[in-house]
Amino acid sequence: MLIEPGKLLAQINSPADLKQFRKDQLVQICEELRQYIIDSVSVYGGHFGASLGVVELTVALHYVLNTPSDQLIWDVGHQAYGHKILTGRREKFYTNRLYKGISGFPKRKESEYDAFGVGHSSTSISAALGMAMASKYKGDGLKQHVAVIGDGSMTGGMAFEAMNHAGVSDTNMIIVLNDNCMSIDPNVGALRDYLTDITTSQTYNRFKDDLWRILGKFSKFGSSAQEVISKVEGAVKSALLNQSNLFESLNLRYFGPVDGHDVNHLVEVMHDLKKIPGPKILHCLTVKGKGYDLAEKDQTKWHAPGKFDKITGEIAKKVYDTPQPPKYQDVFGHTIVELAEENENIMGVTPAMPSGSSMNIMMKAMPDRAFDVGIAEQHAVTFSAGLATQGMKPFCNIYSTFMQRAYDQVVHDVCLQNLPVVFCLDRAGFAGADGPTHHGAYDLAYFRCIPNLVVAAPMNEEELRNMMYSASVYEGPYSIRYPRGQGVMPDWRKPMREVATGQGRIVKEGEDVAILSIGHIGNYAVEACDKLTKEGLNPAHYDMRFVKPLDEELLHEVFGKFKKVVTIEDGCLMGGFGSAILEWMMDHDYQAQIKRLGIPDEVIEHGTQLELHKECGMDPDGIVAAVKKMAAAVSANY
Amino acid sequence: MLIEPGKLLAQINSPADLKQFRKDQLVQICEELRQYIIDSVSVYGGHFGASLGVVELTVALHYVLNTPSDQLIWDVGHQAYGHKILTGRREKFYTNRLYKGISGFPKRKESEYDAFGVGHSSTSISAALGMAMASKYKGDGLKQHVAVIGDGSMTGGMAFEAMNHAGVSDTNMIIVLNDNCMSIDPNVGALRDYLTDITTSQTYNRFKDDLWRILGKFSKFGSSAQEVISKVEGAVKSALLNQSNLFESLNLRYFGPVDGHDVNHLVEVMHDLKKIPGPKILHCLTVKGKGYDLAEKDQTKWHAPGKFDKITGEIAKKVYDTPQPPKYQDVFGHTIVELAEENENIMGVTPAMPSGSSMNIMMKAMPDRAFDVGIAEQHAVTFSAGLATQGMKPFCNIYSTFMQRAYDQVVHDVCLQNLPVVFCLDRAGFAGADGPTHHGAYDLAYFRCIPNLVVAAPMNEEELRNMMYSASVYEGPYSIRYPRGQGVMPDWRKPMREVATGQGRIVKEGEDVAILSIGHIGNYAVEACDKLTKEGLNPAHYDMRFVKPLDEELLHEVFGKFKKVVTIEDGCLMGGFGSAILEWMMDHDYQAQIKRLGIPDEVIEHGTQLELHKECGMDPDGIVAAVKKMAAAVSANY
Repeated sequence: MLIEPGKLLAQINSPADLKQFRKDQLVQICEELRQYIIDSVSVYGGHFGASLGVVELTVALHYVLNTPSDQLIWDVGHQAYGHKILTGRREKFYTNRLYKGISGFPKRKESEYDAFGVGHSSTSISAALGMAMASKYKGDGLKQHVAVIGDGSMTGGMAFEAMNHAGVSDTNMIIVLNDNCMSIDPNVGALRDYLTDITTSQTYNRFKDDLWRILGKFSKFGSSAQEVISKVEGAVKSALLNQSNLFESLNLRYFGPVDGHDVNHLVEVMHDLKKIPGPKILHCLTVKGKGYDLAEKDQTKWHAPGKFDKITGEIAKKVYDTPQPPKYQDVFGHTIVELAEENENIMGVTPAMPSGSSMNIMMKAMPDRAFDVGIAEQHAVTFSAGLATQGMKPFCNIYSTFMQRAYDQVVHDVCLQNLPVVFCLDRAGFAGADGPTHHGAYDLAYFRCIPNLVVAAPMNEEELRNMMYSASVYEGPYSIRYPRGQGVMPDWRKPMREVATGQGRIVKEGEDVAILSIGHIGNYAVEACDKLTKEGLNPAHYDMRFVKPLDEELLHEVFGKFKKVVTIEDGCLMGGFGSAILEWMMDHDYQAQIKRLGIPDEVIEHGTQLELHKECGMDPDGIVAAVKKMAAAVSANY
Repeated sequence: MLIEPGKLLAQINSPADLKQFRKDQLVQICEELRQYIIDSVSVYGGHFGASLGVVELTVALHYVLNTPSDQLIWDVGHQAYGHKILTGRREKFYTNRLYKGISGFPKRKESEYDAFGVGHSSTSISAALGMAMASKYKGDGLKQHVAVIGDGSMTGGMAFEAMNHAGVSDTNMIIVLNDNCMSIDPNVGALRDYLTDITTSQTYNRFKDDLWRILGKFSKFGSSAQEVISKVEGAVKSALLNQSNLFESLNLRYFGPVDGHDVNHLVEVMHDLKKIPGPKILHCLTVKGKGYDLAEKDQTKWHAPGKFDKITGEIAKKVYDTPQPPKYQDVFGHTIVELAEENENIMGVTPAMPSGSSMNIMMKAMPDRAFDVGIAEQHAVTFSAGLATQGMKPFCNIYSTFMQRAYDQVVHDVCLQNLPVVFCLDRAGFAGADGPTHHGAYDLAYFRCIPNLVVAAPMNEEELRNMMYSASVYEGPYSIRYPRGQGVMPDWRKPMREVATGQGRIVKEGEDVAILSIGHIGNYAVEACDKLTKEGLNPAHYDMRFVKPLDEELLHEVFGKFKKVVTIEDGCLMGGFGSAILEWMMDHDYQAQIKRLGIPDEVIEHGTQLELHKECGMDPDGIVAAVKKMAAAVSANY
């Protein structure tokens, strides 16, 4: 289905085209752009509310800025659909987030208008500052550098680090604070409250002017009053002018708040801001999902609803004849509540992913024991460490890709101290349509090298529950990784039992070749074994369950029996699970031929998980091929 | 040499002992504690200025708090010598930072008074908040949770993340901001300026009171003035009271600034703060090095001066008859300037380590091209990425252990976009006396799995220079890791030449066994080869130079010729350099016996680098033993 643009939008294939329109046509352009996004996402799916919220900002920025020479950076980037549509990608937009199609996020490879690749939050100010500093060095004083960042992303520590630097940088930089009170879930924390205070009190904005105006009235009371006024002025000047606002405390000139949906006003303000030198911040108030009523009302649900009927608002759902397996995240969400009901020390911690991790189930059931700490992975981990020192048993749930943000805290604050924090890494392995910024490709490698840390991955729902239970009674740091999406067991609410730390299991006895798998991707190995059996081969299959510690007894059995081994993991080949098996084999003087299947050492783009697994030779057919090739090899050396 | 405590200090073996003294004796206790620290550090070495700066704070906190039940957390922790001396470790203090001795940092294993292990900055608020939240959950409303954090550490993003959460937490927490305007080097950034403004203006502290007092005078002007006052009050109340201070913006009650060297006043203030519920911040002004004149005057030099003559202030220096090799960090510092003189795109970035990394050489020579961005590793990396997008060639220098803080930024902002940022990882391998929090043990493993990233390590000064030159002309991300301390080449200023990316070199031809080394520790292999040669063996030695990409041609040569290989790296065995060699061998169908030497999968404590290498069997004798064992093994299978 081709999406038909409105008649003005149809003429816009670049910001240069946009600039040809009169200012009084911008409202209509915004209307058409908004409609185009609604039409596209309803048919093809993707992120929704964020882009609707910045339609006017997008149009205003491209109308005023001289992109791509001026650098425009969208923090996180799932709000950049309008930006993509205005910068020459309207006709390709139907391929958004599809295999080999355009990315759902700004990406430097894709367009010169995408000044910086994004996906994770809170990077934009640092990147813009680097660009601005380069321009300053080159003497390019007119070039603009704009970071558009949400109030949620602003809670990420690196945004603060960047502002601390920006405030003394004397560079040409505009931070546009897109304040919609939301991350994917409602934004939390003191900063949120503060921004709300600024906005709702209506006083901050005009406070300084008001104060002078009011004090001016005292002049009629004569000279002694004058003297008092002068004192007040002195005090106000030094204490208030420089320190009256969080951002101004950091030496960023603050402007706003302004209505982020008044495109003409935004154009005026941006024109003015371009003329003001130095780092500055424009506080824009926007509504996530603006212009689509249902999305405005339930912003979390409409963050990325999938395909929907744009008239009725009905979100498309596949209909199945049989019961379906649950999402892993929901197994986590229900199971932690179940565990916490029995164990009063269990607590839940999520950095701004209540709905993405299903921690919201616990937050609702036990509000005093489950915490959304904001987009703040570093804090989430060390906060969990603090809880653990007091006898609590925190389950800290962070997507694999975002755990990269808290790597030092896992090493330094949890594992060196051997504190019993449980890490649940959702979205481990390929993230799918979100692409390389969100793939959880590295966690097995970067976690495996940390002392004291248990590294586990369940093959199915029952295993996840057992591992969560086992972690809850384990006296040290314990990590459990599982993928985005569904498991394999419609009937998943089995009673839980403890899995001995480091104990693997035999899925299928066999001969010829042994397949060692870790985690959910082991189900591909099951499929592969079925196919291979039909072809007359008899591979064995072991679900190792743990990358660390390894099941040494089981490995002695494997390498005592097999000279041909295939390992499979939904993670990077460099230093991952397969390497752990290799290391163990060599350290224990076994000789076998090992073929490691996993994610190769390159950037794998977006697509469905299966498409990407196939591309990497890790799908069931890839496993079949690897096993057959190995079985056929005559290797006299082994 | 036994350090003699003063007569009051001699009676203090725990905070309970301290509490027995009258308040008017605290000044003398502080004096004695300060003297004890000066006496100890002058004789045994260690961190100096930071602990001197918090003598009064330390005494006041332990006098008022009920430690260890109350939780006291020292951010970074090198200021905790006084704390250690007061909490039962005075008599062991002479073993500070020595092999098998007490740690230079608070450590949970060492004492129940060390509420949280520290070393890296900016963790204390998160940890204290976790503890406070646990107390709140348990209904333990009287328990105190105190984080003592410097103004430098406050620039680290996770401190901001934690404050954002603390501000809405309703927990019993006191943040003591130890404001001395210093990290190791002078603190930088907008926050520093802001804190200075608060302090020097002298207005903020009493501003609110003053304003009311002044306005009160208007009452004599009658009712119309009253009305005006009321308006002013309204405006001030909503705009100022809640938003007039950076910390109050985050809903932390702000107190101060107070003189951090007035122990009696500190005791009073802490008594009062204990009674005030909710999260709060006490701003203390201190002087780093307080009480030792030279240290007050040159705070960077006296951060950790080593042993010195406490009377003359002369810092002990070893005297050598022959020219000594330089420190690697100085080779970096001089070489980047040399490169930057030729290549105008080169820039330098350091997160608060100008003197530690020797970036200060470039900052002095080229102030517009070298940036200290504060304790802000995440920002440092993404800021560098921003620079790189504009054609700059940033050299971002971060200690290996602190690079853990910026792992996501390396993956997400630099390597996924293949941006030409050069990472120089100082202090890679064992850090020595600083211990496990500072060991650079994991970088080879956690960097090796990132696509696009070159992972290099020089064996000596000349190699470092060549790699820096090579990195400066390479079109992608490039990392170079080198250890703390000296190299091996007194005459190190050789002309630079390009090293082909991934090209290793033969150090010594041989038979029997091949030793493959990476980085500076290859010099141990040279020593080992000398010893082995004397014993009639003839090992070969290859300096691989690169962990990624590997020199495949050289490896074909090695595995074509040798069936016995020893790898050696100053890094973790799990997933590191040796694993890379293993993977390559298996992927290329070679069979050899490989013994990997490196850091085992456990927490290695502090000591000299050589002591720790010996403990791990990685010193020259360890290599000798490994080679001899391998050479002697009859392995029919290979």
